[in-house]
Amino acid sequence: MRKRIVGFMEQEVPYEEADIVIFGAGMDATTSYRPGTRMASTTMRQEFYGIETYSPYQKKDLTDCAIFDAGDLDIPFGNVEASLSLIEKMSYQILQDDKIPCMIGGEHLVSLGVMRSIIKKYPDVHVIHLDAHCDLRDDYLGEKLSHACVVRRISELMESQRIHQFGIRSGDKDEFQFGEKHCDFHPFHLHDMKEVCASLKDVPVYITLDLDVLDPSIFCGTGTPEPGGLTFQELLDGLLSLKDLSIVGFDVCELSPVYDASGVSTTCANKILRELLLIIGGKENE
Amino acid sequence: MRKRIVGFMEQEVPYEEADIVIFGAGMDATTSYRPGTRMASTTMRQEFYGIETYSPYQKKDLTDCAIFDAGDLDIPFGNVEASLSLIEKMSYQILQDDKIPCMIGGEHLVSLGVMRSIIKKYPDVHVIHLDAHCDLRDDYLGEKLSHACVVRRISELMESQRIHQFGIRSGDKDEFQFGEKHCDFHPFHLHDMKEVCASLKDVPVYITLDLDVLDPSIFCGTGTPEPGGLTFQELLDGLLSLKDLSIVGFDVCELSPVYDASGVSTTCANKILRELLLIIGGKENE
Amino acid sequence: MRKRIVGFMEQEVPYEEADIVIFGAGMDATTSYRPGTRMASTTMRQEFYGIETYSPYQKKDLTDCAIFDAGDLDIPFGNVEASLSLIEKMSYQILQDDKIPCMIGGEHLVSLGVMRSIIKKYPDVHVIHLDAHCDLRDDYLGEKLSHACVVRRISELMESQRIHQFGIRSGDKDEFQFGEKHCDFHPFHLHDMKEVCASLKDVPVYITLDLDVLDPSIFCGTGTPEPGGLTFQELLDGLLSLKDLSIVGFDVCELSPVYDASGVSTTCANKILRELLLIIGGKENE
Amino acid sequence: MRKRIVGFMEQEVPYEEADIVIFGAGMDATTSYRPGTRMASTTMRQEFYGIETYSPYQKKDLTDCAIFDAGDLDIPFGNVEASLSLIEKMSYQILQDDKIPCMIGGEHLVSLGVMRSIIKKYPDVHVIHLDAHCDLRDDYLGEKLSHACVVRRISELMESQRIHQFGIRSGDKDEFQFGEKHCDFHPFHLHDMKEVCASLKDVPVYITLDLDVLDPSIFCGTGTPEPGGLTFQELLDGLLSLKDLSIVGFDVCELSPVYDASGVSTTCANKILRELLLIIGGKENE
Amino acid sequence: MRKRIVGFMEQEVPYEEADIVIFGAGMDATTSYRPGTRMASTTMRQEFYGIETYSPYQKKDLTDCAIFDAGDLDIPFGNVEASLSLIEKMSYQILQDDKIPCMIGGEHLVSLGVMRSIIKKYPDVHVIHLDAHCDLRDDYLGEKLSHACVVRRISELMESQRIHQFGIRSGDKDEFQFGEKHCDFHPFHLHDMKEVCASLKDVPVYITLDLDVLDPSIFCGTGTPEPGGLTFQELLDGLLSLKDLSIVGFDVCELSPVYDASGVSTTCANKILRELLLIIGGKENE
Amino acid sequence: MRKRIVGFMEQEVPYEEADIVIFGAGMDATTSYRPGTRMASTTMRQEFYGIETYSPYQKKDLTDCAIFDAGDLDIPFGNVEASLSLIEKMSYQILQDDKIPCMIGGEHLVSLGVMRSIIKKYPDVHVIHLDAHCDLRDDYLGEKLSHACVVRRISELMESQRIHQFGIRSGDKDEFQFGEKHCDFHPFHLHDMKEVCASLKDVPVYITLDLDVLDPSIFCGTGTPEPGGLTFQELLDGLLSLKDLSIVGFDVCELSPVYDASGVSTTCANKILRELLLIIGGKENE
Repeated sequence: MRKRIVGFMEQEVPYEEADIVIFGAGMDATTSYRPGTRMASTTMRQEFYGIETYSPYQKKDLTDCAIFDAGDLDIPFGNVEASLSLIEKMSYQILQDDKIPCMIGGEHLVSLGVMRSIIKKYPDVHVIHLDAHCDLRDDYLGEKLSHACVVRRISELMESQRIHQFGIRSGDKDEFQFGEKHCDFHPFHLHDMKEVCASLKDVPVYITLDLDVLDPSIFCGTGTPEPGGLTFQELLDGLLSLKDLSIVGFDVCELSPVYDASGVSTTCANKILRELLLIIGGKENE
Repeated sequence: MRKRIVGFMEQEVPYEEADIVIFGAGMDATTSYRPGTRMASTTMRQEFYGIETYSPYQKKDLTDCAIFDAGDLDIPFGNVEASLSLIEKMSYQILQDDKIPCMIGGEHLVSLGVMRSIIKKYPDVHVIHLDAHCDLRDDYLGEKLSHACVVRRISELMESQRIHQFGIRSGDKDEFQFGEKHCDFHPFHLHDMKEVCASLKDVPVYITLDLDVLDPSIFCGTGTPEPGGLTFQELLDGLLSLKDLSIVGFDVCELSPVYDASGVSTTCANKILRELLLIIGGKENE
Repeated sequence: MRKRIVGFMEQEVPYEEADIVIFGAGMDATTSYRPGTRMASTTMRQEFYGIETYSPYQKKDLTDCAIFDAGDLDIPFGNVEASLSLIEKMSYQILQDDKIPCMIGGEHLVSLGVMRSIIKKYPDVHVIHLDAHCDLRDDYLGEKLSHACVVRRISELMESQRIHQFGIRSGDKDEFQFGEKHCDFHPFHLHDMKEVCASLKDVPVYITLDLDVLDPSIFCGTGTPEPGGLTFQELLDGLLSLKDLSIVGFDVCELSPVYDASGVSTTCANKILRELLLIIGGKENE
Repeated sequence: MRKRIVGFMEQEVPYEEADIVIFGAGMDATTSYRPGTRMASTTMRQEFYGIETYSPYQKKDLTDCAIFDAGDLDIPFGNVEASLSLIEKMSYQILQDDKIPCMIGGEHLVSLGVMRSIIKKYPDVHVIHLDAHCDLRDDYLGEKLSHACVVRRISELMESQRIHQFGIRSGDKDEFQFGEKHCDFHPFHLHDMKEVCASLKDVPVYITLDLDVLDPSIFCGTGTPEPGGLTFQELLDGLLSLKDLSIVGFDVCELSPVYDASGVSTTCANKILRELLLIIGGKENE
Repeated sequence: MRKRIVGFMEQEVPYEEADIVIFGAGMDATTSYRPGTRMASTTMRQEFYGIETYSPYQKKDLTDCAIFDAGDLDIPFGNVEASLSLIEKMSYQILQDDKIPCMIGGEHLVSLGVMRSIIKKYPDVHVIHLDAHCDLRDDYLGEKLSHACVVRRISELMESQRIHQFGIRSGDKDEFQFGEKHCDFHPFHLHDMKEVCASLKDVPVYITLDLDVLDPSIFCGTGTPEPGGLTFQELLDGLLSLKDLSIVGFDVCELSPVYDASGVSTTCANKILRELLLIIGGKENE
Repeated sequence: MRKRIVGFMEQEVPYEEADIVIFGAGMDATTSYRPGTRMASTTMRQEFYGIETYSPYQKKDLTDCAIFDAGDLDIPFGNVEASLSLIEKMSYQILQDDKIPCMIGGEHLVSLGVMRSIIKKYPDVHVIHLDAHCDLRDDYLGEKLSHACVVRRISELMESQRIHQFGIRSGDKDEFQFGEKHCDFHPFHLHDMKEVCASLKDVPVYITLDLDVLDPSIFCGTGTPEPGGLTFQELLDGLLSLKDLSIVGFDVCELSPVYDASGVSTTCANKILRELLLIIGGKENE
C-alpha cells in the first residue's frame, strides 16, 4: 500500500536524481509548541496543492523539474547552536551530492546554518539578501545569534561588498551605516536588482529571501511586519531578474502562519517558492 | 405594518418599473451549511448600508436608478444541473421582461446558467471576463461542470474570439494555450480594456466578474486567492471604460465571506457592485 | 536520505504489521479548494505532534500500538458516488488484510463508503453512532446522498435496531420519529452507553463519531455547531465504555478547521483519536 | 415576481394573523457603522436557516406558530432618548393589536423602551431578568440612560420585588445591595427559577434575557463576557420552566457578532430564540 | 522601586522639557466596553516597542526628540459634549505651555475638541485634513456632533478655504459640493500636497489625519474602510512634504484594533506616528 | 501634569505601603517580537478596566487592598538563565521588603525564578501547583530549563511531597510516575483541594497557577490547550479554598493572547487574578 502523504511535489523524483532538494528548518526559539515560524514549512506543504504547477510568468512547469522534498529537520527547540549545526550538516550533504539546497525557514537565523556549508564549497559566493530589516546588528540584547543579527554574522564569513541587500526599510542607525559601508546596499526597493544581477553572472550566488520584504498588505503572516514594502508583482519582477545567475542555494524565511488568518500569506510564500524553483530548476517549454 | 427587511436598495422600485434586477445565486456545492460563496449575497446585502449611494467617481447616485432586488434563489445544494437550470429560468424571465439581470454568485459556475438564457435572446453577445483564473479547463478531475471549466463551457455556446479575457494570471499550460488560440486573451492586467471596449460599441455585451481578479491584499475573501492581481483602483478604472457599451447582463462572483475576517472584501464587492449598477443604470447628475 | 514527512505516528509500523490502518477521506463536495472538512486529516496530522502519545486516562501509549497511516485518498471533488466508491475500495482492502480501518472524514457521508465494505465482511455488524444530528432524512432537498441522510442510508444496509444512536439533539420531526422506531435511540446524552455496550459484547461493532456531538464550546470547528452537546469529559467517558467491544472499524468526522481559529477543535479531534486508537489497539502497561 | 429575502420565519403569517411579532432594535450608541450589538438581528436572521424549526426538547415546530417578523427599526444612532421612544412606539402598537412583542437587541438598554409600553397595558407585570450583570447602577459615569442602569430604570416603573433576577455574577457592591433589597434576587445560577415561576402563574410576565448570562465558553460574542456563567443546557432548562406563565413580551439582547468569529454565539442566540418562540407560541404536536 | 509601565517613548523627557505632548482620547460613543476606536491609544502604546525609533526615511531618531506621553483622558462614555470639552481643556493647557499637542483618537470627532483650543491661540490657523471621507455633513441622522460632521463643524470655526482636504473618496453629493465650494478640495489622492504645503509656509498649520485615508489593504483596522485609498508609501511621501511647515498640533484618528486581527493596522498607525513626531520634533543627524 | 497610564489598580498604593506587589515576566524564549505569552501582562493590564473591582463571590473589593503594580521586567529574550536571574532578583527584593510577590507570566518556567528566592526566605515552603501538564520532565529535547521541566526543577529545591499538584491531565508515562512517587499528586480535578489546604494551615505556601488547567472551552488563549480541564467555576471554587493559608507568593502563567481572538481568555485571567488578590490581600466588607 503506497503512502499518500505527499511533500511539495506530487510527482517528485528520487533524491538521487534531484537537482534541487527542499527541506524545512522550523527553528523559532525555545518554546515547545506553536508560536511563529516553526509551522511555516508544514503549512506551506499542506497548502501547496492549491497552487498551479505551471507559471504563466515563466512558461515553465514544476512537473518538468527534478526536485526532492526531504521533509523537515527535527529542530532541538531552545538550543540555537545545535539547531544551526543540524542545518549546516543537512545542506552540506546536499552540496556534497552536487545538488542545490532549498531551505524553508523558520526565523531568518537559519540562513547562517546553510551559509556555513555554502562558504566551504563556494568560498567566492555572493549573497543576494531581500528583506525589510537590515539584520545587521552586532548583537540583540546581548545575543550574537539572533535573527536581527543574521546578516552581520554571515558578513563575517566573507569579504566585504559580497552581500547585496535589497528592500531594507527598517533598522537602527548603526545598521544602516554598517550596510552602506560594508554591503552593496540598495534600501527600500529593487530598482537596481537587474543591474546588480548583470554584474554577478560569473560567480556563485546564494539567495536569502525574508518574506517580510513584501508589504504587509499582501503578506501579514510574519512576526515583524513593516508597512511600505514591495507588492507581490515587484518582488516577482525582481526575482525573475535572477534567471541567468549560477544559484547554488536559496532559502525562503519568516512566514508565520499564526498571523495569517486568511491564508493569503501562505499562498504568497508558495507562489514565490514555485517561481524560485522554476527560475533555478525549470525548463522553458511551449 | 410595513416590513423593514431591505434588500440592496433602500428605495428600490417595483419589479415592473425596474431597469436592472438583482438576484443572488449562492451555489457552491453539496454541503448543506456555511462553506464558501453561498453566503456572498446575504452578507453583501447585510453590509450594503455601509456604502454611500453616491459615487464621486461617476457623479451618479443609486437613488436615481431603477433597480429591483429579487432576493436569493433557493439553490438545491449538491445538484449542479438543477441549480444551473434554476438560474437560467430566473434570468430568462428577467430578459423576457426587457430588464437587465445582475447576478451575485456563488461560485463562478453560476455564470453558465445566465449565459444559457442570454445567448437565446442575444445570439451575437460578447463576453467580457475578468478573473485571476482562466476557467478554461475542459474538465476538472473528470467533471465538466466545475467552476474551473465555466468559461470553456460558455465558449462552446458561441463563436470563437467572442470572449474577451482580462487579468488572468493562473491556470495550466493547456488553458493558457486555449485562451490564446480561441479567446481574445489579455492576461495579467487590464491595459487593453479601453481599446477592446471601443471595438464592442455595437454589440450586446455580458460582463462576468470573478472578484479574485483583485489582488488578495485588498480581496482575501475568496476561495482561491492569487497574489499578483489588480488594485481596487485598477479594477475600477477598467470597469469605468465599460460605460458606453450595451450591457445586457452581468454578474459578480466568488466572494467567500468566511475568509474575510475584517469585512473589507465584502465592502469591496459592494463598492464594485455600486459602480457597475451606476455604469449601467445610472444618470449623470450634478 | 530518509524522508521526514511523518504521518500520525512518528514510529509507525509497516502496513503489513499494522493492526489499525488510518486514512483520510476529505470529501466535502464539488468546490475545488478550501471549504470545510476536506482539510481535517491534513490539519490533524500537522498538529498531532502537539499531543502526548501517552494517555493518563487509559495508562497506555501509542508507541506500543501497531498503526500504519496510509495518508489521504485522492477524492474526486464534486462526484459523490465516485468518492464513496473510492472509500469503499480502500476500506475493503484493509478489511481483506484483516486490519481495522480508521477513517478521518470529511463530511459524515464518508461513513457510507466504509459501511458498504464492512457489511460485506461483517453482515451482523452493529453501529454505534455519536452525533448532534439524526442524519436520518430520507433525502435532503431531493438528494439521497447527503450528509444529512447518511445514517438513513446505512440503516438500509442492515436490520432494524442495529444502529445505536447517542447524543442526538437536532433534526426534523420525521427523523426523531424514524430514530425512535427503527434505531436504538438515546438522544441528548450518553447516559445509557455503558449498558448498551454491555449488550454488544458478542457482535462486531462499527463506531461512527461525528465530532459535533461535542458542545461547540469545546468544538466550534465544524460546519453545523449545535449548542447543548457533550463536554469533552462526557464524550471521553462514553468512549472508554467501548473498551471491551469487538470493534471492526471506526471513523471520526466533520472537523472543519476553517472555523477553528484557536486550534482547540483540532486538538480535541486528535486527543479523541488517540483515545480511540488506544481503546482498540493499545496495551495496558505500567 | 415574489421577493425572496426572508425574515426569521420562512413560512410566516401576515401581521394580522400573528400571535408574536419579532422586531430588531440595533441600538448600540452613536458611532455610525459596525461596532457591536447593532448587527445582532441582521446576523441572526442571516443564520437562522441553519437552525431546525423543530425542537426535540419541546416536541414543537415553528412551522405551527403564528409569527410575523417586522424587520428592524431605523435607530437614530447617537440619540438615546429618540431610540427608546421609537422602540416604545413599536411595542405599543403590537400590544394594542393584542400581540406579543419579541425584540432582538441591541444593547440591553432597549428593554427600557419596551417596558414603558408594557407597563401601560399591564401595570401589574412582573419581570424575569436573566443576566450576568446587575444592571442596577443608578448612573454610569453620570449617565442615567446606560446599559449598566437599565434594570434600575425599569425598577422605577414598578413596585418593589416585581423584578426577579437570575444568574447575576457581576456588579459593584451597591448594585448587589440594591438587588438584594429591592429585587427578588437569585445570583449566580437558575436553581430557584422553577419555584419562582410557580409563584407567578397568575400575573403577566415580561422576560428580558441578556445573553451574557451564558458562560463565555459557549457565548463569547458579547461586549462584556463574564466567565462563570450558565451552560447552554442550564439556560435551556431554566427557560423551559417558563412554559406555564402568561408571557406578554420578551427580548433577547447583547449578541455582538463582531466578537463571534466561529458563529457559535449567533447559533446559540437563534436556538434560544427558537425555544422561547415555541414556549410562548408553540403547540405540542406528535 | 521604579515603575516599568512605559508610554510611547521609553526615554521620554519630563513634561516641562517636552516640545510635543502625546495624549489619547478614546472617545467612540456611549457603550461601556470594547467597541471600536477607544482602544486605539492603549493598543498603539502596547505595540510601539515593535517599531524602531530610527527612521531611514528621514534619518532621524525618536531618542533625539523631546516628547512627553501624558497617557489617556478619562472620557465620559456617552456624553459627547463633555468629552469634547475635556479634550479642549487638555490641549489648551498644552498650548498655553508652548508645546505641541499630539492627540491619538478615538473617532474623528475628537479633532473638534482640539481645534476649539487651537483656534483661540492661532486664529489664522490652516487645517490639512487627510481622510477617505468628506466628514462635511451638516448633520448625521439629525446629530450635529457626529464623526461624519467633524470637518463641517471645524469649518464653522474659521474662514473659508482654510481647510485643505486630501484623499477624500466617499461622501454624499452635498458633501462633495460643499467641499468643492468652501474647502481647498483635492479628492482621491495627494498629488497636489507638495504644492499646497509650499503655499502654507508662513501660517500656523494643524494636521488631522484620519487613518482610513489609507487603502484597507494595508489598513483594515478601522470602522468604515474605503477601498481605493493610498498605499503606505503614498501617505508617507505626502507627510514628508509637511516638513517645512509651522505645525502647531496634530492628531491621528480612527484606528479600531478590533478589526485588525493581524496587528498590521496598529503597526501602520505607529509607524505613521513615528514619522509625524520626527517631522515635527526630530533633528536630522548622521 | 499627572500621567494617566495606569497599571492593574486604578487607585493603587505606593510601593512602600503595599502588601502585594504585581510584576510581569513576559519570558517566552528567543524570538524578538510577538509570539506567545510575552504579551500576557500588557494585555491583561490593558483589559483590566473591563473587570469590576468588587467580587460577589468573596464580598470584597480591590479598592480596599494595598497593591502596587511594578510593571514589567525587561526580559533579555533568548537568554533563559539571565531572565530567571532577573525574576529571582525582583521577587527577592519584594520578599526582603516583607511584601508578597504576584508574578504574571510568561511561560511557566518563570516560576523557577521566583521559587529560588522564595526558598531562601521560606525554606519550609509548600507549593500548590495547578496545571494541565505535569511539567515534571527531567529534560525536554535535552534542555533542562524548559517550561515542560519547571516543576521538576522546583522539586529539586525542596523535600519530597512538598509539591501538591492538581488538575494534571497530560504528560508522558515517566512524568506521571514521578508525580505519583515524589509529589502529592491529584490529577484530573480539584476534588481533594479543600482537604489538602486544611493540612497546610501552618506552613508558608506558594501558589503557581498555569491557566491551562482550565478547559480550553473557556481558556483557548494558551500555547498548549488540553481538552478535559476545569470549568471556570471549578477553578474558582478550588481557589476559594486557599483563603485560610499563609500565602507568601503566587503566579499566574501561560496566557497567550495571540490565540484568544474573542478576548475571553484575558478576561478569565483577569478575573482569576482579582480573586487571588482578594483571597490574599482583601478584607471582607459588607
